[in-house]
Amino acid sequence: MLPWKACTVGDSMEQIDTPSLILDLDAFERNLSHMTRLRGQMRLRPHAKSHKCPEIARAQIAHGAVGICCQKLSEAAVFASAGITDILVTNQLVGERKLRHVRELAQTIRLGVLVDHAEQIRSLGHVMAGSHHELDVYVEIDVGAGRCGTTVEQSVVLARKIHALDGIRFAGVHAYHGGAQHLRKPYERAAAIRFAAARASQARDAIESVGMTVPIITGAGTGTFWHERDSGVYNELQPGSYIFMDRDYADNEPDAGEARFEHALFVLATVQSRPAPDVAVIDAGLKASSVDSGMPAVYKRTDLKYVKASDEHGVIKIGSQHGLSSSAKISDATTGHGLQLGDKLMLIPGHCDPTVNLYDEIICVRGGKVEAIWPISARGASL
Amino acid sequence: MLPWKACTVGDSMEQIDTPSLILDLDAFERNLSHMTRLRGQMRLRPHAKSHKCPEIARAQIAHGAVGICCQKLSEAAVFASAGITDILVTNQLVGERKLRHVRELAQTIRLGVLVDHAEQIRSLGHVMAGSHHELDVYVEIDVGAGRCGTTVEQSVVLARKIHALDGIRFAGVHAYHGGAQHLRKPYERAAAIRFAAARASQARDAIESVGMTVPIITGAGTGTFWHERDSGVYNELQPGSYIFMDRDYADNEPDAGEARFEHALFVLATVQSRPAPDVAVIDAGLKASSVDSGMPAVYKRTDLKYVKASDEHGVIKIGSQHGLSSSAKISDATTGHGLQLGDKLMLIPGHCDPTVNLYDEIICVRGGKVEAIWPISARGASL
Repeated sequence: MLPWKACTVGDSMEQIDTPSLILDLDAFERNLSHMTRLRGQMRLRPHAKSHKCPEIARAQIAHGAVGICCQKLSEAAVFASAGITDILVTNQLVGERKLRHVRELAQTIRLGVLVDHAEQIRSLGHVMAGSHHELDVYVEIDVGAGRCGTTVEQSVVLARKIHALDGIRFAGVHAYHGGAQHLRKPYERAAAIRFAAARASQARDAIESVGMTVPIITGAGTGTFWHERDSGVYNELQPGSYIFMDRDYADNEPDAGEARFEHALFVLATVQSRPAPDVAVIDAGLKASSVDSGMPAVYKRTDLKYVKASDEHGVIKIGSQHGLSSSAKISDATTGHGLQLGDKLMLIPGHCDPTVNLYDEIICVRGGKVEAIWPISARGASL
Repeated sequence: MLPWKACTVGDSMEQIDTPSLILDLDAFERNLSHMTRLRGQMRLRPHAKSHKCPEIARAQIAHGAVGICCQKLSEAAVFASAGITDILVTNQLVGERKLRHVRELAQTIRLGVLVDHAEQIRSLGHVMAGSHHELDVYVEIDVGAGRCGTTVEQSVVLARKIHALDGIRFAGVHAYHGGAQHLRKPYERAAAIRFAAARASQARDAIESVGMTVPIITGAGTGTFWHERDSGVYNELQPGSYIFMDRDYADNEPDAGEARFEHALFVLATVQSRPAPDVAVIDAGLKASSVDSGMPAVYKRTDLKYVKASDEHGVIKIGSQHGLSSSAKISDATTGHGLQLGDKLMLIPGHCDPTVNLYDEIICVRGGKVEAIWPISARGASL
């Protein structure tokens, strides 16, 4: 709830008040197209928890996505209000108030949810009883992340329970390996997804062995999706961060055959203090760029290192050895020492999802100008 | 922007949809009164970056605060719109768009800002020239935190530059030691504030030696304010977190003479999955409770440990040795294993400020019922 706008359409980058969330439209569009090529024959259901922005969901669907994932029911309700008609909430939903909204939302869109416990199925069956619109229910299996999800054996039990109830429909298996996405080494990620795909295929075989079909096996993230694509097991991919590419994803060592996505999301910040020759303080701290996955990087400024975030300040160390060759050190250090009050820097957030969740709007730029301002309509939709 | 309300006034705690931000009104009010006693003869100007909530600012002023601090100009504008008339923005403000708003806001309230560089003074003087309402300008000195702030010697130069310009008024010295607030040992905090107070008194003496007066020496936080109070140097205190008390502040080892504040701010969460006998997954991850200062604690459940946060999930380890005696371990572990889907837990956020900034509303409870719902009007006001 800002009392004034950070900018208006047509402004130059220099005119944008800071800190502000910036989308480089050219890079974003290249990322969209790149994913369209890379997904091959797979269904693409991008995760909207990364962006919470209906304009972006519409762009993904225009690029061939079958729908979106959300992580929260209230998030899904916001996207449904914005006209998105096929949403999988990749989460277990518990609580009377929430379940009433499940029923309501399932009347207006194709809605899917996850279960990993018989009690969730009983509740969903209870709330959906007598509904004219079935709810898609996926059994989540634990494929190595050690968070939610059930065993292969239990997945059969749960699938049959879903099948036995009116108002809910067994839609498939959810097999997302969150823990694999940021394993730094390519062979670690490959091994993790081999394990996940084996579990998913075991669950599929076990469920099919009792005479049911498994329409969808869904999962995958930006760090691994080409492994799921090539697994012969999955038929739907859920990457979210590929549109933005945060610092944490960029820190993964790339696979030989993996095409990299471009950084498209930034936090624009301003130098507000120069307390020492080798230190600049900027106006973007941890309320402007989430630090749960580490500090942001400074875009195209290898001479600058974001070393410390407090709530509303970021401390930038200038010059010295930020992984540079010695010749680069000297010239960059010279550049860095020239940082002036009022200079603007572009930060690459450590983690895009919680960073986007700090802002009401994303400022879309192209050719150095503000082309559009998109509302982050599901910002704060945590219920 | 939630598509539905988490609760309505009069609901029981059990009826609140989760995750939600909860204020225990009784504990909050005791914290307010406690600070009124502890501040003694000092001016109290609580920091509103912790709560971003006009209702809370009004309660603080009703308890004797002279005004509030904000950390962002846009935050101050929100509070000004809500009727708060005396605000110190404890920050350097740089950028043309921001400075125009400084002038506007200074017409409607008593506004203060910080400087630590001659260029900021020049810009403020330029924008305030010809204004009918003077802007209070404080020189920030670095008292050990190593962030913004100038030296004692330079503070004299800056004070004189402020004094020389129309439209701005030298209001005093800002001497906040952020780095001291979470030093765990009482003697570490005491030593840090002795150093800070020495620097502040040197700055005061140096500025007075050129014939100026130093009306206000302001600083202090919840972790140290009684040291500033007793320093003989400061005359204004800026604590913010005392109203809420997060886990990080509670982890400080208490001073012998220090009265502790109570936990009053919580994130209410629901058990959504029980993937293993010793694991529960709740619906509150790092978008519900900021983890920049570590994981939240589980209130009054020493048998439960919040071990891992992903965006929208929290992993709770049940039982075992969470700092308990062996007899307590057994009974608590038994309790923990009884956790059911749908059970609610109260989390004590690791860090209150960025946690509050995730929510649009704070749900105020007393006696197990929702008594009020207060808007967090300055949520997201980062400009």
